[in-house]
Amino acid sequence: MHITLDRHLSTPLVQQLSEQLLAWIERQRLRPGTRLPSIRALARSQAVSASCVIEAYDRLVASGWLEARHGAGFFVAERKAGVQRDAGESWGEASDGRWRQFHEGHGDVLKLGCGWLPVAWRAEAELAQAIRQVSRGAAEALFDYCPPQGLASLRLQLHKGLARLDICAEPERIVTTQGASHALDLLVRTLLVPGDTVLVERPGYYNLYNLLRLHGVRMLEVPRTATGPDLAVLEQLLAEHRPRCLFINSLYQNPTGTSLAPKVAYRLLELAREHDLRIIEDDLYADFQEGPATRLSTLDSEQRVIYLGSLSKTLSSSLRVGYLVADSALVARLAELKMISGIGTSRFAEQVVGQMLANGSYRKSVQRLRLRLAQHMAKLLGQLEACGWEVFCEPFGGMFVWARVPGRDFAELDALALEHSVLLTPGSAFDPQGRASDWLRINVAYGQDVRAQAFFQHAGRPSAS
Amino acid sequence: MHITLDRHLSTPLVQQLSEQLLAWIERQRLRPGTRLPSIRALARSQAVSASCVIEAYDRLVASGWLEARHGAGFFVAERKAGVQRDAGESWGEASDGRWRQFHEGHGDVLKLGCGWLPVAWRAEAELAQAIRQVSRGAAEALFDYCPPQGLASLRLQLHKGLARLDICAEPERIVTTQGASHALDLLVRTLLVPGDTVLVERPGYYNLYNLLRLHGVRMLEVPRTATGPDLAVLEQLLAEHRPRCLFINSLYQNPTGTSLAPKVAYRLLELAREHDLRIIEDDLYADFQEGPATRLSTLDSEQRVIYLGSLSKTLSSSLRVGYLVADSALVARLAELKMISGIGTSRFAEQVVGQMLANGSYRKSVQRLRLRLAQHMAKLLGQLEACGWEVFCEPFGGMFVWARVPGRDFAELDALALEHSVLLTPGSAFDPQGRASDWLRINVAYGQDVRAQAFFQHAGRPSAS
Repeated sequence: MHITLDRHLSTPLVQQLSEQLLAWIERQRLRPGTRLPSIRALARSQAVSASCVIEAYDRLVASGWLEARHGAGFFVAERKAGVQRDAGESWGEASDGRWRQFHEGHGDVLKLGCGWLPVAWRAEAELAQAIRQVSRGAAEALFDYCPPQGLASLRLQLHKGLARLDICAEPERIVTTQGASHALDLLVRTLLVPGDTVLVERPGYYNLYNLLRLHGVRMLEVPRTATGPDLAVLEQLLAEHRPRCLFINSLYQNPTGTSLAPKVAYRLLELAREHDLRIIEDDLYADFQEGPATRLSTLDSEQRVIYLGSLSKTLSSSLRVGYLVADSALVARLAELKMISGIGTSRFAEQVVGQMLANGSYRKSVQRLRLRLAQHMAKLLGQLEACGWEVFCEPFGGMFVWARVPGRDFAELDALALEHSVLLTPGSAFDPQGRASDWLRINVAYGQDVRAQAFFQHAGRPSAS
Repeated sequence: MHITLDRHLSTPLVQQLSEQLLAWIERQRLRPGTRLPSIRALARSQAVSASCVIEAYDRLVASGWLEARHGAGFFVAERKAGVQRDAGESWGEASDGRWRQFHEGHGDVLKLGCGWLPVAWRAEAELAQAIRQVSRGAAEALFDYCPPQGLASLRLQLHKGLARLDICAEPERIVTTQGASHALDLLVRTLLVPGDTVLVERPGYYNLYNLLRLHGVRMLEVPRTATGPDLAVLEQLLAEHRPRCLFINSLYQNPTGTSLAPKVAYRLLELAREHDLRIIEDDLYADFQEGPATRLSTLDSEQRVIYLGSLSKTLSSSLRVGYLVADSALVARLAELKMISGIGTSRFAEQVVGQMLANGSYRKSVQRLRLRLAQHMAKLLGQLEACGWEVFCEPFGGMFVWARVPGRDFAELDALALEHSVLLTPGSAFDPQGRASDWLRINVAYGQDVRAQAFFQHAGRPSAS
């Protein structure tokens, strides 16, 4: 059994131990009934207390992975249909809520914490028209495979769009993907091996954490401040460890809505150069930009930053179109992996998106979205303040506000929300270790719904009352 | 350095050594300039001859991974943009031709060896109509994410279609994927760990080999005969090794076009039970079926067989819609990985396909395809015989004929083909080790083209001449 506990991490040892035991059980595919080491033996081999081992085992019993047999020890449990990798407490409290936003048939529940805009806000007429145009055009779009790097016409449009953000990305340096998560998966599989260490923001994107955990990559957490990652912590982690890369949202970060300040960005690139650190800049809210913005890819002159973009948030999550920009050698490896793991992306979807980028209908539709988001953001921030909510930092734009009600934990808020037919996403989902949190990600687009308004008022604690 | 050479494999030691060295260089991300062990030291540690090591090093020099410095030894080379993982000889001669079929702009070259049907054969009117209908329907199809297992309405239609093949697959046991290669990727990532051993057919699907190699899985090769895998070899490999699973095309195998005989299928399942072997049955030519056919999933009563299907060959490669059927516990893990690695499939594409399955237009279109394929197959087999070609086995149906011209190697055939504007796929691409082969996969749908006809005649050696 190969277990390495790190006393320098902020993650409690109990949690490290239970997670690594679970990973080991899965990796070894231990059969039900296999006996685990005794408490004493494990405590000795890992140099931890017996109570630490007991608690780690107990957690795995509670989540259905182990069973305790009186007097005989702990054994791998029979897998029940309901007990999946995401069911254990060790995978974070997010497990319960993680995919529930994605299931069909929620009836009239308002997904206040979800990560996308309402269908009613989207460019329905424009997208439907582009789809019909492509369906009447060259038959190749309907039937053929896509080339390994993606459709050349789409990559040309993406190149032009990036040039407007002062990002120089020749079409040859772009690979299309099935959204940003797919881009992250390709990158993790190409750049990292199990046991590698990387830097992630806390709070941050839950599915990135899932992906890194799945790949056996160790995460070092950098707190996200109002102006970007906490540089003091970052410097210390860089000095003590040798992380291979940093994953970051520069603009309108998910879930805090904060954006990178120019000084922070500049220092970040300096540190990256000093420590030979790669940066993966996930810029999927790029097209929501209002006013000036700071991006690492704009400042970077040494191809140290890998840039990700996606049309899922601004145009359609259904079409699955995203992309990444990297140096040519990496692009070739990523395109190869993209073919091996799925024979590429959808030519039809890329043709539709490319057409909307070319004919200007995409640009017009995101202008509408930006205006609407800005109005909703302003209203919501005022209302939350009036209701006694605390906001982490007032965002300059984007879709998210990170907020809480001092003194109320998630369980309390969740119960109140359900009374008002509101579905929340727990703050713990945005913590790399799934630690409990009283913060909530609020999607501003849903904030003016009567159910959300009732929830804000009932959950809030106005200072006047 | 961890290298394990297996003297029981049919793969030459030199090839095993060069492949494992390459994998090690990549895994360790050795920097350019890193020195490799001396020839003598490596020969001693691996108990092979010095000439074996020299040849392995030379291959890596030839493919640009290493450089030899006179008198000083072998060093990791600077990576050039053109030198990618697929460029080395050790990755098979397929490298040159592997993705060339997928690139845009081939002009008027006939892709005689490609793996899909011509656009002109496809159900253009029906697919375009379904797309337009979906574009006018509920906006969710245009904008929303898909649930983790895939759209329920599509899974219901797939379930009904499988019932007609006597495969019992409740919608709850189906996960949709972005085609069969994506399904294979999800399975390999979920079921296998690096170092595992599996059984593959030889010749077989090149992208499965790529995927297994990428994942560090060892392949044991079972020759494909006219009636299925060679059972004598299979039994011996099962007795000597403990492979975790077997990958197989039961019907119209790629590339030989052969189908499983009932007796072989029955014995195969018996062996699988005895050796606790999982079988992954990739049935992507299912809907080309003419007359009776034998499938392992139909016979299997213990959920030992995982079934894959795809709409890429019969309907559209552009939409990226495939699926797999497995037991519920595995389905939950696969759906989880599908979300983590890409937030699922395209709702739009699944809605379009589901609609064509439901309204009968898909069924009508594959009936037309079957008839056309059967006519082309009969003609082609007659012509090849007349031109002095040798056919591995006359297929009962499907898209492929596996054929050669006795005495002509691939280089010769390829040169002749290019003279007639015909693009071939080398037989070596269908060999797990990329060994040279004089066999060619011929796609019957392109066989009546004048360029193909001229090539068959010029390359062939009629006995009368």
